[in-house]
Amino acid sequence: MERTESTSDSVAFNMPDWLIQFADQKREFNKRPTKIGRRSLSRSISQSSTDSYSSDSSDDETSPRDKQQKNSKGSSDFCVKNIKQAEFGRREIEIAEQEMPALMALRKRAQGEKPLSGAKIVGCTHITAQTAVLIETLGALGAQCRWAACNIYSTLNEVAAALAESGFPVFSWKGESEDDFWWCIDRCVNVEGWQPNMILDDGGDLTHWIYKKYPNMFKKIKGIVEESVTGVHRLYQLSKAGKLCVPAMNVNDSVTKQKFDNLYCCRESILDGLKRTTDMMFGGKQVVVCGYGEVGKGCCAALKAMGSIVYVTEIDPICALQACMDGFRLVKLNEVIRQVDIVITCTGNKNVVTREHLDRMKNGCIVCNMGHSNTEIDVASLRTPELTWERVRSQVDHVIWPDGKRIVLLAEGRLLNLSCSTVPTFVLSITATTQALALIELYNAPEGRYKQDVYLLPKKMDEYVASLHLPTFDAHLTELSDEQAKYLGLNKNGPFKPNYYRY
Amino acid sequence: MERTESTSDSVAFNMPDWLIQFADQKREFNKRPTKIGRRSLSRSISQSSTDSYSSDSSDDETSPRDKQQKNSKGSSDFCVKNIKQAEFGRREIEIAEQEMPALMALRKRAQGEKPLSGAKIVGCTHITAQTAVLIETLGALGAQCRWAACNIYSTLNEVAAALAESGFPVFSWKGESEDDFWWCIDRCVNVEGWQPNMILDDGGDLTHWIYKKYPNMFKKIKGIVEESVTGVHRLYQLSKAGKLCVPAMNVNDSVTKQKFDNLYCCRESILDGLKRTTDMMFGGKQVVVCGYGEVGKGCCAALKAMGSIVYVTEIDPICALQACMDGFRLVKLNEVIRQVDIVITCTGNKNVVTREHLDRMKNGCIVCNMGHSNTEIDVASLRTPELTWERVRSQVDHVIWPDGKRIVLLAEGRLLNLSCSTVPTFVLSITATTQALALIELYNAPEGRYKQDVYLLPKKMDEYVASLHLPTFDAHLTELSDEQAKYLGLNKNGPFKPNYYRY
Amino acid sequence: MERTESTSDSVAFNMPDWLIQFADQKREFNKRPTKIGRRSLSRSISQSSTDSYSSDSSDDETSPRDKQQKNSKGSSDFCVKNIKQAEFGRREIEIAEQEMPALMALRKRAQGEKPLSGAKIVGCTHITAQTAVLIETLGALGAQCRWAACNIYSTLNEVAAALAESGFPVFSWKGESEDDFWWCIDRCVNVEGWQPNMILDDGGDLTHWIYKKYPNMFKKIKGIVEESVTGVHRLYQLSKAGKLCVPAMNVNDSVTKQKFDNLYCCRESILDGLKRTTDMMFGGKQVVVCGYGEVGKGCCAALKAMGSIVYVTEIDPICALQACMDGFRLVKLNEVIRQVDIVITCTGNKNVVTREHLDRMKNGCIVCNMGHSNTEIDVASLRTPELTWERVRSQVDHVIWPDGKRIVLLAEGRLLNLSCSTVPTFVLSITATTQALALIELYNAPEGRYKQDVYLLPKKMDEYVASLHLPTFDAHLTELSDEQAKYLGLNKNGPFKPNYYRY
Amino acid sequence: MERTESTSDSVAFNMPDWLIQFADQKREFNKRPTKIGRRSLSRSISQSSTDSYSSDSSDDETSPRDKQQKNSKGSSDFCVKNIKQAEFGRREIEIAEQEMPALMALRKRAQGEKPLSGAKIVGCTHITAQTAVLIETLGALGAQCRWAACNIYSTLNEVAAALAESGFPVFSWKGESEDDFWWCIDRCVNVEGWQPNMILDDGGDLTHWIYKKYPNMFKKIKGIVEESVTGVHRLYQLSKAGKLCVPAMNVNDSVTKQKFDNLYCCRESILDGLKRTTDMMFGGKQVVVCGYGEVGKGCCAALKAMGSIVYVTEIDPICALQACMDGFRLVKLNEVIRQVDIVITCTGNKNVVTREHLDRMKNGCIVCNMGHSNTEIDVASLRTPELTWERVRSQVDHVIWPDGKRIVLLAEGRLLNLSCSTVPTFVLSITATTQALALIELYNAPEGRYKQDVYLLPKKMDEYVASLHLPTFDAHLTELSDEQAKYLGLNKNGPFKPNYYRY
Repeated sequence: MERTESTSDSVAFNMPDWLIQFADQKREFNKRPTKIGRRSLSRSISQSSTDSYSSDSSDDETSPRDKQQKNSKGSSDFCVKNIKQAEFGRREIEIAEQEMPALMALRKRAQGEKPLSGAKIVGCTHITAQTAVLIETLGALGAQCRWAACNIYSTLNEVAAALAESGFPVFSWKGESEDDFWWCIDRCVNVEGWQPNMILDDGGDLTHWIYKKYPNMFKKIKGIVEESVTGVHRLYQLSKAGKLCVPAMNVNDSVTKQKFDNLYCCRESILDGLKRTTDMMFGGKQVVVCGYGEVGKGCCAALKAMGSIVYVTEIDPICALQACMDGFRLVKLNEVIRQVDIVITCTGNKNVVTREHLDRMKNGCIVCNMGHSNTEIDVASLRTPELTWERVRSQVDHVIWPDGKRIVLLAEGRLLNLSCSTVPTFVLSITATTQALALIELYNAPEGRYKQDVYLLPKKMDEYVASLHLPTFDAHLTELSDEQAKYLGLNKNGPFKPNYYRY
Repeated sequence: MERTESTSDSVAFNMPDWLIQFADQKREFNKRPTKIGRRSLSRSISQSSTDSYSSDSSDDETSPRDKQQKNSKGSSDFCVKNIKQAEFGRREIEIAEQEMPALMALRKRAQGEKPLSGAKIVGCTHITAQTAVLIETLGALGAQCRWAACNIYSTLNEVAAALAESGFPVFSWKGESEDDFWWCIDRCVNVEGWQPNMILDDGGDLTHWIYKKYPNMFKKIKGIVEESVTGVHRLYQLSKAGKLCVPAMNVNDSVTKQKFDNLYCCRESILDGLKRTTDMMFGGKQVVVCGYGEVGKGCCAALKAMGSIVYVTEIDPICALQACMDGFRLVKLNEVIRQVDIVITCTGNKNVVTREHLDRMKNGCIVCNMGHSNTEIDVASLRTPELTWERVRSQVDHVIWPDGKRIVLLAEGRLLNLSCSTVPTFVLSITATTQALALIELYNAPEGRYKQDVYLLPKKMDEYVASLHLPTFDAHLTELSDEQAKYLGLNKNGPFKPNYYRY
Repeated sequence: MERTESTSDSVAFNMPDWLIQFADQKREFNKRPTKIGRRSLSRSISQSSTDSYSSDSSDDETSPRDKQQKNSKGSSDFCVKNIKQAEFGRREIEIAEQEMPALMALRKRAQGEKPLSGAKIVGCTHITAQTAVLIETLGALGAQCRWAACNIYSTLNEVAAALAESGFPVFSWKGESEDDFWWCIDRCVNVEGWQPNMILDDGGDLTHWIYKKYPNMFKKIKGIVEESVTGVHRLYQLSKAGKLCVPAMNVNDSVTKQKFDNLYCCRESILDGLKRTTDMMFGGKQVVVCGYGEVGKGCCAALKAMGSIVYVTEIDPICALQACMDGFRLVKLNEVIRQVDIVITCTGNKNVVTREHLDRMKNGCIVCNMGHSNTEIDVASLRTPELTWERVRSQVDHVIWPDGKRIVLLAEGRLLNLSCSTVPTFVLSITATTQALALIELYNAPEGRYKQDVYLLPKKMDEYVASLHLPTFDAHLTELSDEQAKYLGLNKNGPFKPNYYRY
Repeated sequence: MERTESTSDSVAFNMPDWLIQFADQKREFNKRPTKIGRRSLSRSISQSSTDSYSSDSSDDETSPRDKQQKNSKGSSDFCVKNIKQAEFGRREIEIAEQEMPALMALRKRAQGEKPLSGAKIVGCTHITAQTAVLIETLGALGAQCRWAACNIYSTLNEVAAALAESGFPVFSWKGESEDDFWWCIDRCVNVEGWQPNMILDDGGDLTHWIYKKYPNMFKKIKGIVEESVTGVHRLYQLSKAGKLCVPAMNVNDSVTKQKFDNLYCCRESILDGLKRTTDMMFGGKQVVVCGYGEVGKGCCAALKAMGSIVYVTEIDPICALQACMDGFRLVKLNEVIRQVDIVITCTGNKNVVTREHLDRMKNGCIVCNMGHSNTEIDVASLRTPELTWERVRSQVDHVIWPDGKRIVLLAEGRLLNLSCSTVPTFVLSITATTQALALIELYNAPEGRYKQDVYLLPKKMDEYVASLHLPTFDAHLTELSDEQAKYLGLNKNGPFKPNYYRY
């Protein structure tokens, strides 16, 4: 029988402040939309390619809620910006399909059996070409889906139109108001004659809405799949409070997804983000990286490889020792702040770079954030009268001291790789495949396998996600012989490692 | 309160064959002593430095058991080769002390409180200068210790003498018979008026002996600390069978120790082992590394850095995907076996390199093993009449095919880094510190914290081991502010990560 | 006395075809402007930042030649797009000054002596903020300057305006016709009461024009400084033909400039160019790099560091052996063309990638060129009826085979790093400093030191360029003691290496 | 026609002190034999493998000069330790042949034509298995050879015996007196009825002897091939003084040989040397490398790759800038001397590490030399009464300060890689092939191609050496098409680069 690992023991960690703070931020929804999860921005909405889409949002001021639209089959069970953009969106989806071989492979296997037959999935994620490939895969696997956006800005209208045209009830457009946001979610859930039995959430808003408005729905719901840090924490809170009434799958912390979202993706995007914004040369530059988790490890490795001299700060002695063994001087930020050319934060903490640090940096120092929120650099402390801000490029500000010293602040302290770089489709493919498999697992699990708790993706599923992506690299996996499997005490098809294995 | 993590869920893994096989090997004890754990061989007993000690073992044929020896204080509660070698052993210990700053720091802190006051520790490990620093540290922390060797060949007689001279009852010498081996263990345990309350074991023989001969002793024993893969597995077997009657600490799988024993240590020792045996040049060589766990990762990184072209084989798709992202072609062994210059096994599996592979290798191909046992290369298959073996150096055999093809087999397929390289004292320091802290934790834990189960070292202790080694690198840890700790929901002193964190 | 090294022996190399071809290309001037030297494009005219400047070129259709403009001092000895843009151009120049510390240091030292006092320099280069810093530095060193653009598209109008406003006679704008191009050059040279005595050229057009129109001018000219591959070859041709009538300095081949233009710059720009155009992930990708010169070495090192698997092709066995020792499989292109994800050319050769290769590539393969011309990929062979071209982004074409296979062709086979990336100011700083020092050397050289030949920059000057850039890295050079200098037989101030030293 | 490059311009460099000093050292010949060139020590005489040979030198005290020996063919025209050791020596030679494919390839090609037919070569080099492969190759190419050793300690007696048995007049044994040394050389040269027409020298002693004793011999000598730094300098001195009466080939500075002797070899041997002597761990260690030439570049790259933090000192601003761009902090030694764990010298200079530096190093600091002489560390300054020396291992001294501080000095400041590591046969293969080709070139050159000057190996020959070693790596060179060769202005068979190309 499949074994799974509960991470409910991590509930013992205290409720962190930033989660409480998050709730507060919700109130300011319209003013500062910061609800963008790390890994959900795709190529299609990157800085460099948004231009081509910009026209459609400006030329039509009518709210989609006030429009009457039908797709070519006559259905009007959707709400998107402009159904006529469907063809263009379809082309985007087709391109994405080419780079998401794992989902396409799932579709092929589903030609015989439909593992999601009977599933009624309500989803709330960024709506991009990659998400569309996921949604259409879920459909091919037998599921009925209804979808809303988890962010008021991130929807690609053309893609939403293409989905609507293909018969998926999508309620989402770029530039929703907060009221629109909840209206769209409600339209997904509150349908006559249709009730969801699975939830796919990114951020926890959909889950929250159902809890608040339609708690009875949980009776029929077989499980929640949640992919964001924030949403996962909300689930653990529910679990701790004894209020989680269905099994939930934390796909954020699956091995494969974590490594790609953090180590592998950031190893490339730190270089990309810095180059696109500053055209700087990396060779010979002195850099301090705050935090040596997966993100920090990726940043450090990339910059070292490009000839930068990298210093690391850490609070955790184990990660600190790793930094030492990997060839980085472990320092306190104060020790090097005067000499470095670049400061990069990857801690997930707040006020790691303070005004005091900023005051001591040298002229021309670049400051940016690769961590998970916009709190790491105390940007607010720079909003004082004696400092002048000069926007020199999109996402690049010069903050100028009275003596003429300039600090180059990127993306106003928000995530560099989201703001100034793009997330490769391959990374999104891993996330989407993980979500699909988690839905399949929860939907098909025998009664009793999962309790009302938060689970990590079973290792075997995690391994399966990885194996679906190996063909991209023409990589050939070795199979255990019977004799070897017996010797190791393993099943030939995995799982291959104990749960505590660290990779 | 300190939280700990039970790994008893890993018991669900089946009893592996190699562990059963291990039991069989015990019977051949005198013929093939392979009971050497990876990380316990020190500089002092390395290939290159044994010469200076060789004299003493040959010039005196009397068994230590038949000798009457007293140390300078008149005690004869020990059994070593030659108490007169104490001074030379003391010098070795002093040198080791310089490279084991963490234990020395523990001693300093123990000047006030004695966390092991009242502890009666019986130990069974390799007896080297580094172990002596550990034993004397345990003494300084308040413990009474009695010690035997866990291997019949690995004792440094001078060090054993120095310990005996300092008043530690040590029963051990180089070249024990199997009967001597168990006699020594028994002398540690079976003492009138003294009964152990803590066990420090390496391989499980001491634990096994007490279970078999003095099961009642467990009533007073507060816990077992075990550091070897083999010993840990035996404990899990006991636990599974419901026979584990005291808490046991698996220190083998602590993060810090694992990373140093495997990734960091092997990254260096693969180069060292290959150079010392073959004087080969790494640049441009084609190498296949079987297995991409921590050991494989270390080997691959080192060889890539030296200009080798590295191929990887794997059975686990997650590790396979990591190999791809780290820049290695993932292949099946058959695909590259004809072209590679070096084959390195790091799987922990058996018959990874078969006679068929060996038949297909090209002339001059080097074959060696960095995994945890001597089963990975099917060396037995090379003992056939048509093949000629030629010993060209210590640890280096040429196996010659009828057509003149030569395969260079290192260490007869045993661990290359143990046989042909040395383990840096720094790595041993981490192991010894981990053992000391595990003893302190188990000994001081409040009633009920630990059940009759196998535990991993509490993360906070693991972090403490790491922090004690940071000064070696002049590394400066950052401390959380109160505000930041609150924001993150962490205690300022750690633990800093959830248990499932992968590092 | 200063020793210099003539490279006239390299004249023994035959006149290469591509130089002959170059002359032919000149006739197609208006159709395909490819006269962009590798290292002369600056941040300010990069892909990502041109948008802000695009307005000015479209809103005013009057030719600058037909306009009447005066700067604030009343001078009209210039011809630029719009003198009113001077202020914006000045800001760009000031930003560039911050990143060109070496030229600023030269200005400071020139406060006492003016090494170019009396120099009348006519220049023909790309006109960018960095060039402006050079021109104004030459002015500060005592020179009078007149300037034209070496490329009809690369002028930054704002910067030209700022120079004109500051009193430098500049004749240049973005979007010149070929007639404009030569008219601008002529306006620099053909001035009443002013005759140049130094030439700074990039591509050889200015030199060519004077040879053709005003050969008598060479009587007063003390030397030519030329920085492009093309221009240097034209000089060697003149020298070989006995027609070079003044000394010329080949600054293209100075050590410092070469390393930065090629190895160090390409190491970063290959990643940047690929990311900006394709958002691809490097990890695990199979790449073949054609050519292992400095550019190839840079590309290979960067991609290997990012986790790509890199193959190399080479014709020169010495470079091939280096590729092997650096850890790359040396192959023929045919051997890997079916399996690679990316093909990069860095040979300087023609038809390295042929239609036959393109036919065999797999779906999605990316093809691009980092070499010195647009000949390496046989792009013309893709202009056949059965292939469909689809422009998917700026600089990115999909070429689609009848079976649906898509090849991703970047920049239509032109230089990737020029077309899709930017050249860091620091690299341009090294080039500009080298040019300034070459001018100073030629202008101040005692009679007879330089004959009518082509010279490399004296090593001591090359070392000086390097030393002026060390402070950027807070790098501290060690000085020889008298005793050490005597021991080594060196002057304490250099040169430190024999001419044949390879670095 | 083949073009060659005279490096006589480098004569302009002053006669360095260390060359003068060298002459002085000759007088102390018997006391301190330091005449070991970097690249001539082979595996067979490495530290770790000498033991097997030690017996023969001790059991027979008769001087070879006093013995009567004949080989199996009855010849006694040789003088070796013991002709009976020939068989064992032959086996060593056969092993070396397997790793020297380039010379074996030359032999094969020589089956038709004998390019050295008529050549009478007198040689003076280290006599090792690799040299024997060279000598026998020269024989196979048609030459007659007579050979002496260039060092009184480095001869492998078995190999000398094998050569004598095969009919080569060899005069050499391990442990010659200075008188023996010159006697052996004389026996090679001063032969009735035989006069050499080619010289192969390593260090210049043979050349010196002929100049002094038999100057008339030069009338028939067609050229000298010299491979050591010292010997090359002596030749330049002769040339400068107008006393060089035959062409000489400086093979020391050929590209291929330089890269392998320095960059590629040292990249590996620095790690090997440090590990074998100290068993230290590289990860996290702070290291300062003095000098960033090829040797320094190799050391820095290797240590950085192993996780050390590396600082560099340099006097040459160009190399300094390279160090910066490669990611190393450029410092003065004083800035880091207190904090580093390892100091490595690679400058070729003297007193780079002074007593003052040594006084300031921290406890346990390791000091070693990878440069070309034993002058870099001022070891003499450590021979003062207040410091205690303790030999802890072969080649490892602890120098102990009055306060207990210990410095770990390796190889007493002599070359670490020669003293404590081995030179791979592959590197020696490149050297030997270069020597063979230089002899062929000089012997076959048409009258007048070479004057009485010192020449570098023609680039085409250098390329040929490289190409002969490519098969070792299964490397496949690409060939130019006719069209491409024309385009590039190159001959399809090379040379492929101008002389000033830097690789």
